[in-house]
Amino acid sequence: MAQEDVFKKIVSHCKEYGFVFPSSEIYDGLGAVYDYGQLGVELKNNIKKYWWDSMTLLHENVVGIDSAIFMHPTIWKASGHVDAFNDPLIDNKDSKKRYRADVLIEEYLARIDEKIDKEVEKAARRFGESFDETMFRQTNPRVLENQKRRDEVHARFAKALNDGNLEELRQIIVDCEIACPISGTRNWTEVRQFNLMFATEMGSTADGAMKVYLRPETAQGIFVNFLNVQKTGRMKIPFGIAQIGKAFRNEIVARQFIFRMREFEQMEMQFFVAPGTELQWFEYWKQERLKWHKALGFGDENYQYHDHDKLAHYANAATDIEFRMPFGFKEVEGIHSRTDFDLSQHEKYSGKKMQYFDPELNTSYVPYVVETSIGVDRMFLSVISSAYCEEQLEGGETRVVLKIPAALAPVKLAVLPLVKKDGLPEKATEIMNALKFSFACQYDEKDSIGRRYRRQDAIGTPYCVTIDHQTLADNTVTVRDRDTMEQKRVTIDEIEKEISLKTDIKQLLKKLA
Amino acid sequence: MAQEDVFKKIVSHCKEYGFVFPSSEIYDGLGAVYDYGQLGVELKNNIKKYWWDSMTLLHENVVGIDSAIFMHPTIWKASGHVDAFNDPLIDNKDSKKRYRADVLIEEYLARIDEKIDKEVEKAARRFGESFDETMFRQTNPRVLENQKRRDEVHARFAKALNDGNLEELRQIIVDCEIACPISGTRNWTEVRQFNLMFATEMGSTADGAMKVYLRPETAQGIFVNFLNVQKTGRMKIPFGIAQIGKAFRNEIVARQFIFRMREFEQMEMQFFVAPGTELQWFEYWKQERLKWHKALGFGDENYQYHDHDKLAHYANAATDIEFRMPFGFKEVEGIHSRTDFDLSQHEKYSGKKMQYFDPELNTSYVPYVVETSIGVDRMFLSVISSAYCEEQLEGGETRVVLKIPAALAPVKLAVLPLVKKDGLPEKATEIMNALKFSFACQYDEKDSIGRRYRRQDAIGTPYCVTIDHQTLADNTVTVRDRDTMEQKRVTIDEIEKEISLKTDIKQLLKKLA
Repeated sequence: MAQEDVFKKIVSHCKEYGFVFPSSEIYDGLGAVYDYGQLGVELKNNIKKYWWDSMTLLHENVVGIDSAIFMHPTIWKASGHVDAFNDPLIDNKDSKKRYRADVLIEEYLARIDEKIDKEVEKAARRFGESFDETMFRQTNPRVLENQKRRDEVHARFAKALNDGNLEELRQIIVDCEIACPISGTRNWTEVRQFNLMFATEMGSTADGAMKVYLRPETAQGIFVNFLNVQKTGRMKIPFGIAQIGKAFRNEIVARQFIFRMREFEQMEMQFFVAPGTELQWFEYWKQERLKWHKALGFGDENYQYHDHDKLAHYANAATDIEFRMPFGFKEVEGIHSRTDFDLSQHEKYSGKKMQYFDPELNTSYVPYVVETSIGVDRMFLSVISSAYCEEQLEGGETRVVLKIPAALAPVKLAVLPLVKKDGLPEKATEIMNALKFSFACQYDEKDSIGRRYRRQDAIGTPYCVTIDHQTLADNTVTVRDRDTMEQKRVTIDEIEKEISLKTDIKQLLKKLA
Repeated sequence: MAQEDVFKKIVSHCKEYGFVFPSSEIYDGLGAVYDYGQLGVELKNNIKKYWWDSMTLLHENVVGIDSAIFMHPTIWKASGHVDAFNDPLIDNKDSKKRYRADVLIEEYLARIDEKIDKEVEKAARRFGESFDETMFRQTNPRVLENQKRRDEVHARFAKALNDGNLEELRQIIVDCEIACPISGTRNWTEVRQFNLMFATEMGSTADGAMKVYLRPETAQGIFVNFLNVQKTGRMKIPFGIAQIGKAFRNEIVARQFIFRMREFEQMEMQFFVAPGTELQWFEYWKQERLKWHKALGFGDENYQYHDHDKLAHYANAATDIEFRMPFGFKEVEGIHSRTDFDLSQHEKYSGKKMQYFDPELNTSYVPYVVETSIGVDRMFLSVISSAYCEEQLEGGETRVVLKIPAALAPVKLAVLPLVKKDGLPEKATEIMNALKFSFACQYDEKDSIGRRYRRQDAIGTPYCVTIDHQTLADNTVTVRDRDTMEQKRVTIDEIEKEISLKTDIKQLLKKLA
C-alpha cells in the first residue's frame, strides 16, 4: 500500500475510534486545529506521563514547572520573537490569495529539479544499460543550463533570507516569472513580514489594554523562572527544568493532520550548565533522548539524528531526532545548545541579574542552556502511525490492530463475559469493579467474542480477559495477548498484578535506567 | 492569628517553597496571572489525576476528551457568550480609572449596611444588657431611613441588572452621588458593556483573518463533540464526558491570589441524560462530588452547599459546593442542571442534528445535561490553605507543616542519610535509585537531620526515611510520619510497598467506592 494511503487510513482510523476529531466539526471545522477524543486523550496523557516521569523521577536534578500561557509582552521582545518570528507573505492581486514568498521560491526550485530529473530519466530510457548518469548530468546542455539557473536562484534566495531582504525576495519571484497557481498571473503585491504570534488584549483601563501574546514556545516560561526555581528548590548547576504545555503559532500553511497545528503542546526541558560544559551536556541529552524514543520498541532503524549545519543565532550546536512517519523521516524532537542567549537577553530587558553563584567554581555566571524540545502531538502521531497494522489472519480475515506499547495504551484491559447469560456478566462486572482502581478497563458484552476482540485490537487494548463457564467453577479466566493473539488461563487473583506489571509506565522507565 | 494574616502567610509560603510564583516576575509581573513552581506543578498534577481517575476509572459511563482552546467563533455566539458574557464598565473622567459599574453600586450598598451596623453597635454599647437589637432596628429613625434607602437602591439595581439597562446603572451611580475613590469626583462617562472573552485573529488571507476567542469555559468543547464521542465510543445515555483544560476570562477585578485569575484551569464533566431525569441525576452528582471533596479528610464541617435561588436562563437547578477558605466560605465547584439549552443552541447555529436515539425508549431526543465544574486553581488553593499549619513543638520550637493528603503531596518520600560520611550517603543513594521509579523521592544530605525534617514538613512530604549506622548492619531504616512525627524501623525491602500503599491516589479512590 502506498505510504500516502496508509496515512489516510490512519487519519480516518483516528476519527472512527475516538482518537482525534477535527475541532469544531459540526461548524465545518477550524483550520489546523484538532480535538483529542476519548481514547486520544488517554494515549496523549500516557505519552506526557512517560516524558514527565522520565525527566523528573529518573533525574534527581530535573524538576518541573507549569508556567502560564500569558506572559509579560517584553519577554517576547527579549527572546527575539516580536522582531524575528515572521513569515514573509505576498498576495496575488488578481486571485487575492496570500502565499509565503519563501515557499513560492522553494516550489520553483523544486520544479527545476523535477525538470532535470525528467531529462535524466528520458535519457536513461533511451540509452538503456549503457547509460552513465553522472556523465550525462555533467555534459548535457539542457541539464547544465537548468542546474546553473537553479544554483543562481538558490544563492540569491539564501542571501535574501539571511539578510531579511523582502524586496529581493519579491524581485526573485518577478525575475523567475513565478505565477499564482490560482489566477495564473504575475500581478504581485509587496512582500510583508507577518508575525506568527497570536496577539490579544489584556485588562481594560481607560488608558487602554495591554497587548499580550499567546506563547509561541514554552521555553521562555522556564527561563524567566530560572532563579525562582533555583533558589526555592535549592538547585545546584547542572540542573534542569521541565515543562509540558500549550503553545500557539499562527502558521499560514498548517498541514499533515496533527503534525503541524496552530495550537499544539510541547514538552520542553531546559538544562542549565556551567559555560564551557554545554557541548558535553548536549551530547549527553542527545543520547538520553534517543534512548527514550527507542525504549518504545518501534525499531531502532526508524530513528535518525539530523545535525544542523546552519545554526540559529542563539545556538552553538543543534540536532533533530527524526522518526520515520508515513510521509518520510520527520523531526519529532529538537536538542539545542542555546548558549547563554536567552538568560542574557532577559538580564538586558528586565534589568534583573540572571546569574548563578557556583560554590564549586567560587564564581558567578549566566548559565549556558541545553534544551530538549518535543511536540506532544507529533509524538502522538508517531506512536499511532507506527502502531497501525493490518494483518491477514489464518481464516482469510483481516484485522486492524494498533500495536501501541502497553504502557501507553488508552485501555489496558477489556473485560468480556463469553455470553450475556448464566451469571457471566455479573461475574465479569465483579472482576471489573475490583480492577478499575488500578488501570483503565473496558467492559463489553455485545456481539460475538471474535468481534469484541477485533474492536479491542482496533483501539490497541493490550489484554482481554474472558469470563466463561469454567470461571464460575474454578475462578480462572483466559487472558488474551493483543499482539500474539495467544490465550492463557490465569486465576482471577493474578490478573491485577500480571496486567499492572505489563502495562505500568514504570516498565518503560526501567528500560532507561 | 487573623484569617487575613494566615492568607498572607500562605501566599508567601507558596512563593518561598516553589509552589506558586507571580508570572513574569522579573518583568514586575502580569496582573492576575501566576506560574506553578516545581512543587506546585506536582500538587496540581496530583489534584488533576485524582479528579480524572475518579471520573473515568470509577464511572464506567464517563470518558474524557481534550478539545482545543481555539474553537469556531460561532460556538460562542450559540452559547450566548458573544452577546451576554459582559461586565458593565464606567470611567471616571478625572482619574481616568475604569470601574465595574455594578461593583461601585454593590460597594455603595455595603457602605450603607456598615453605617446601620455601626448605629446598632453604638446603641448596644450605650444600652448594655438591656439592648434589644430587633426592636432597635425596627424603630430607630436613622436605621430605618438607611434601610429604606438601601432597599430602594437595591431594587433599582436588581432591575437594571436584570434588564441589562446600562443607562439606569449610570443613573443609580449619579443619584447615589458615588464618587471615584481616586479623584473623589463624580465626573463619569457612560456605562459600556465589556466582553470578558479574549479575542485574537487566526490565519491570514488577503481577505482578512478570522476573529477567534480563547475559550472562557471548557464545557462547549464537550457539547460540540457530544455526538462524536457518543458514536465512536458506542456510549449509551446516561453517560458523561470529562475534560481538564485552560480557560480564559479578561476579568477587570481579578483578585485573591490564584482564586480568580485571567488564565485558569477547569475540570468539567457534562453528563447527558434523558429529558425528565435530569433532577435525579443532579442530586446524584451533588452527592458524588461532595464525597470526592470530603475524601481528602479536611473535615466535613468545612463544606457546604449553596443552592442558587436565581438561576441562569439555561439552568433548572444549580448549587455550589463551598469550602472554608481563609477568606470565608467560597465556591470551589458548581453543579448545574443545564437542560437541553447548549445542545439545542448548537443544533440551531450549526444546522446539525444533536439528537440521540434512545434504544430503550425507542425515540430520539436532544439530551439534557448535568454539569459538574471545578476550578483546578481554586482546588489547589483550598488544599494548600487547609494543609498549612503552624505547630508548637515540645522544645518551644515552631514548625510549619503542610498536612497535604499523602496521595496529593508533591514529594512522597525524603531519603536522608543521617550523616554525610561512613558510607551512609552511598547507601541512601542506592535506596533512592531503587525507589525512584515508583514515586517522587527527594534526596537531602545537607544540615542536621532536624533541619531536614523541618524542610520536608514545610513542603508537605508525608514520609522521611533516615539511613543510619544501623542500616549498614541490618538493612533497616527509620520511617518518620509527617503528621505524628513518630518514627518506626522497617526493612529496606518493605519501604516501596509501605509508601506506595499510603501515597497512591488509589487510596483516595477507594474511599469513593
